Amino acid sequence: MSTPRTYGYLGPEATFTHQALLQLDDVVDPRPFPDVLAAIDAVVEGTIDAALVPIENSVEGGVSATLDHLAAADGLMITAEVLLPVRFVLCATAGTTMGSITEILTHPVADAQVRGWLSTNLPAVPVRHVGSTAGAAAELAADPRPGRAAVCAEIAAETYQVPVLVEEIADNDLAVTRFVVISRVARPTPPTGADKTTLVLFQREDHSGALLEILDQFASRGINLCRIESRPTKTTLGSYCFSVDAEGHLADARMGEALLGLHRVCKDVKFLGSYPRADGQAPVITPGTANADFAAAAAWLAQLRGR
Amino acid sequence: MSTPRTYGYLGPEATFTHQALLQLDDVVDPRPFPDVLAAIDAVVEGTIDAALVPIENSVEGGVSATLDHLAAADGLMITAEVLLPVRFVLCATAGTTMGSITEILTHPVADAQVRGWLSTNLPAVPVRHVGSTAGAAAELAADPRPGRAAVCAEIAAETYQVPVLVEEIADNDLAVTRFVVISRVARPTPPTGADKTTLVLFQREDHSGALLEILDQFASRGINLCRIESRPTKTTLGSYCFSVDAEGHLADARMGEALLGLHRVCKDVKFLGSYPRADGQAPVITPGTANADFAAAAAWLAQLRGR
Amino acid sequence: MSTPRTYGYLGPEATFTHQALLQLDDVVDPRPFPDVLAAIDAVVEGTIDAALVPIENSVEGGVSATLDHLAAADGLMITAEVLLPVRFVLCATAGTTMGSITEILTHPVADAQVRGWLSTNLPAVPVRHVGSTAGAAAELAADPRPGRAAVCAEIAAETYQVPVLVEEIADNDLAVTRFVVISRVARPTPPTGADKTTLVLFQREDHSGALLEILDQFASRGINLCRIESRPTKTTLGSYCFSVDAEGHLADARMGEALLGLHRVCKDVKFLGSYPRADGQAPVITPGTANADFAAAAAWLAQLRGR
Amino acid sequence: MSTPRTYGYLGPEATFTHQALLQLDDVVDPRPFPDVLAAIDAVVEGTIDAALVPIENSVEGGVSATLDHLAAADGLMITAEVLLPVRFVLCATAGTTMGSITEILTHPVADAQVRGWLSTNLPAVPVRHVGSTAGAAAELAADPRPGRAAVCAEIAAETYQVPVLVEEIADNDLAVTRFVVISRVARPTPPTGADKTTLVLFQREDHSGALLEILDQFASRGINLCRIESRPTKTTLGSYCFSVDAEGHLADARMGEALLGLHRVCKDVKFLGSYPRADGQAPVITPGTANADFAAAAAWLAQLRGR
Repeated sequence: MSTPRTYGYLGPEATFTHQALLQLDDVVDPRPFPDVLAAIDAVVEGTIDAALVPIENSVEGGVSATLDHLAAADGLMITAEVLLPVRFVLCATAGTTMGSITEILTHPVADAQVRGWLSTNLPAVPVRHVGSTAGAAAELAADPRPGRAAVCAEIAAETYQVPVLVEEIADNDLAVTRFVVISRVARPTPPTGADKTTLVLFQREDHSGALLEILDQFASRGINLCRIESRPTKTTLGSYCFSVDAEGHLADARMGEALLGLHRVCKDVKFLGSYPRADGQAPVITPGTANADFAAAAAWLAQLRGR
Repeated sequence: MSTPRTYGYLGPEATFTHQALLQLDDVVDPRPFPDVLAAIDAVVEGTIDAALVPIENSVEGGVSATLDHLAAADGLMITAEVLLPVRFVLCATAGTTMGSITEILTHPVADAQVRGWLSTNLPAVPVRHVGSTAGAAAELAADPRPGRAAVCAEIAAETYQVPVLVEEIADNDLAVTRFVVISRVARPTPPTGADKTTLVLFQREDHSGALLEILDQFASRGINLCRIESRPTKTTLGSYCFSVDAEGHLADARMGEALLGLHRVCKDVKFLGSYPRADGQAPVITPGTANADFAAAAAWLAQLRGR
Repeated sequence: MSTPRTYGYLGPEATFTHQALLQLDDVVDPRPFPDVLAAIDAVVEGTIDAALVPIENSVEGGVSATLDHLAAADGLMITAEVLLPVRFVLCATAGTTMGSITEILTHPVADAQVRGWLSTNLPAVPVRHVGSTAGAAAELAADPRPGRAAVCAEIAAETYQVPVLVEEIADNDLAVTRFVVISRVARPTPPTGADKTTLVLFQREDHSGALLEILDQFASRGINLCRIESRPTKTTLGSYCFSVDAEGHLADARMGEALLGLHRVCKDVKFLGSYPRADGQAPVITPGTANADFAAAAAWLAQLRGR
Repeated sequence: MSTPRTYGYLGPEATFTHQALLQLDDVVDPRPFPDVLAAIDAVVEGTIDAALVPIENSVEGGVSATLDHLAAADGLMITAEVLLPVRFVLCATAGTTMGSITEILTHPVADAQVRGWLSTNLPAVPVRHVGSTAGAAAELAADPRPGRAAVCAEIAAETYQVPVLVEEIADNDLAVTRFVVISRVARPTPPTGADKTTLVLFQREDHSGALLEILDQFASRGINLCRIESRPTKTTLGSYCFSVDAEGHLADARMGEALLGLHRVCKDVKFLGSYPRADGQAPVITPGTANADFAAAAAWLAQLRGR
């Protein structure tokens, strides 16, 4: 956990991802990447040890690029997660006031999260989507014509020295973004008692019964899911895989048995790591699903078979 | 299978159980016992090696005495099964004709299986229940007053030399009784590919969801049940255990995993043996539940955990 | 409930069924019948209004004759139930002592419930099975040779004036027998809030998944089962129907919807009545399954369809 | 279906949505809207009769804006769907060649679908995201400096008269986008035998068992799902609703019963319409789930309750 590692992150500098990176204690030599794919590829190639990328936002949902690249890549694993409350500011070039804004730059996901505020306060102003919120601030710094504004993180306004007009403009002040640390495959960190396991599950057949059968592998072992995302498999419409975060660790007996069942009922199961929950919340253990229950059952079976 | 063993059976001589015993090829020194409990107890005590007792009849259902003693006893196992088509004769003391019968002796289960025939052909004649069909024939031999008749197996009429009045009087000529060989606990015979496993399952709680959870342990591994009997646990009304025969063998991977699951969700699981099916019928293997599928899943999990 | 009706019961006089009949308040002209079938037939034919017969015993399980005749008969319904604690006495002909007993008469079901006591106290004495416990006492009265004993209800010993040697000889002093009142089909009594519904369910196919599908019709509507008995359909070994008592009344919305589902997934569903529970115990209503929840759902659907 | 209606669509002119609109036969006065929300709002307000918006793409997955606004809005319904194969061209300002491209404009979703082609053929060229593929072509027309290219639909290149450099550059030539017609709430079109029903389902509790219970409402009535998307409810991380397309029509008995069940087990169910499938594919009817089966069950229940 504390061995220093070289990190990539979804850049440019001063993005929310950059800000999330500050919560990690093993970072050396952080390096921005232009997109999620580039950061992930750099991990695969060994240029960096790990990459921090967003995976989920409480307002916008899953980050498709991250979900899809993780589902497609080989040799990668999630080794940690970071939660970051989402706070936006409206900044603008020097001399610009609320009344004189003629264009707003931001990232589409940020746009979605301040849409209500913008509709109310700047209804007539066109919004132009750019690659990142930090990039929006950077563009203002590079071309400081009056009338230009950006929606970004406070850190971006600071970094690029663009004056802040309004703080806290997010529509939902409980919004949270979740980031994951992606590393090359290795032994997972030992269970802490409050862990998550991330999987991608490919249905053998795409009917409702198949998803039911998949979910039953978790439910029948008392394993709760904290995230489930359906993603197209990119072949035909209606063909899905499911990206899930399940409570528990690869080393837990109930997770092991669920994985065995999933391997049998799915076309493919991709294990993307077991890692500590950022919120430290331990699962409720259903009676009959503790490690000791599985051990007792296994001992009984071994005795039946061995005599 | 062919090591000679001393056998007890539900007597007296010339019962259906005695006739079923003739199908076994490892019997030496067959000995009749007055009831199922006595035969089972003799196995427990080591007086005999094995006991043959009826467990199920296609018309009358489960044989409660056998089910309940097997559920209660320790150190016993079912090691084989025998199927016997049920055929009854009406025999009577010398000189008795259909018109002069004044009393019919038989066992209650036999009575139930010829009830239609008796109602039609001897509607006014009282039926007296005795401990076995063979005992009915024996009683006629011992006290050959005219007017006395018995419903029994043909072998009983022969053994006790009581004249047969009418053959084939069973209401259902497809009726079959199933017998099981009970032995002391030992390693089950190796899987033949067409095996049964007998279990007694005690619910943790007596609600419909609990039975559902139990059945799901079989269904989710593609295991079919060929028999399910609810039996009272003899405590309060509404408290049941379930005696089941499941397709497959203790050594099968899917059965092993079902047993692990049952051990976790039940208050108690009693394993009563895996043995070849008398009808030699192999189960249909659901995709994903063959031994190879479980082995592949286990290898995958071991590789995930081991790296 | 209080309109006087002519009743039959499983006789002869002084059986446990006779004693249970005393708990009913609408009985006129009680008439003993020699067996369950005869009593049921008399209801079908209209000779009597109703019949009281045993259906279940907490030690011995279901009463096959009752279950099977109810499953087979047409035009019948269960309209009430009676619970009776089971208490046995040992009575014997005048002058007989414990040490001089040479033969014990009783019904097989009674035998099963005092087996432990007999094994301990009269291990060497042969037991002869007769048609009813009352019949056992009657036989002693008719043929009072010394050495003859009977296991029966206290009421039988009194009725036939056979001296009681030992009271309370039941192995399980919590044993209860449940009796049902069988009437011709009519509108069920209105729901009391603590009702049972009795059904016979015939599987479309005899695999474990089929039973699971049946049970799910109850479980998914929050309906608990207080009794489930598998009974052979009397065709081939392994072909079962299920006799169940479900908590609730035909008029309850959740029961109605469960019946709709059962009708669709079963080969046949036999409705055998909704009637008040003898123990007055009201069910726990799962959230979303109250009548109001079904009514709200139906109103919503009607509104969607009607606009 | 053929009454002329005023339509809005996700503009500007020459988007894929515009092209999809050409498949509809009841369009008068098509009007572009800057985003999905604006188009939907115009339907709510009555400015237009209907809006055509994208809802799903076989490569990129669900269109969040459409899913979320439909989940949030009141008084709207999906009344038709349109499928459009996705084909992209690379166009560029006059005089630009593959070798001289310095910037590529396109929409992020389009970018995702030609990413492989761009990586191979124009690896070093920066991609700038704009609000629509048509907007990218329009921007080139407005500012035709050499070196600028756009990825867009062929119709956009034509409309804005930007020369096409390369056709068919989509990575997956099976890619399809699905569009839906959004109208104000009205009676759904009658069932055609090949219909879809769109619902938004809000879980009562967010555990895996709750989703299982929801899916079971479909599976137990033999209803297949052709789309399932989890979407955040925009409150806390891990709180989801599910946007689903189920096979069948509001008027189908099995769908009606599934809706009743969903209404009982969900916190909220939003019905978003039943409409003909664009592919005309009729569902496979599971035994016991045809309209006739539900009618037979209902008739039987009515007869039980009515007598």
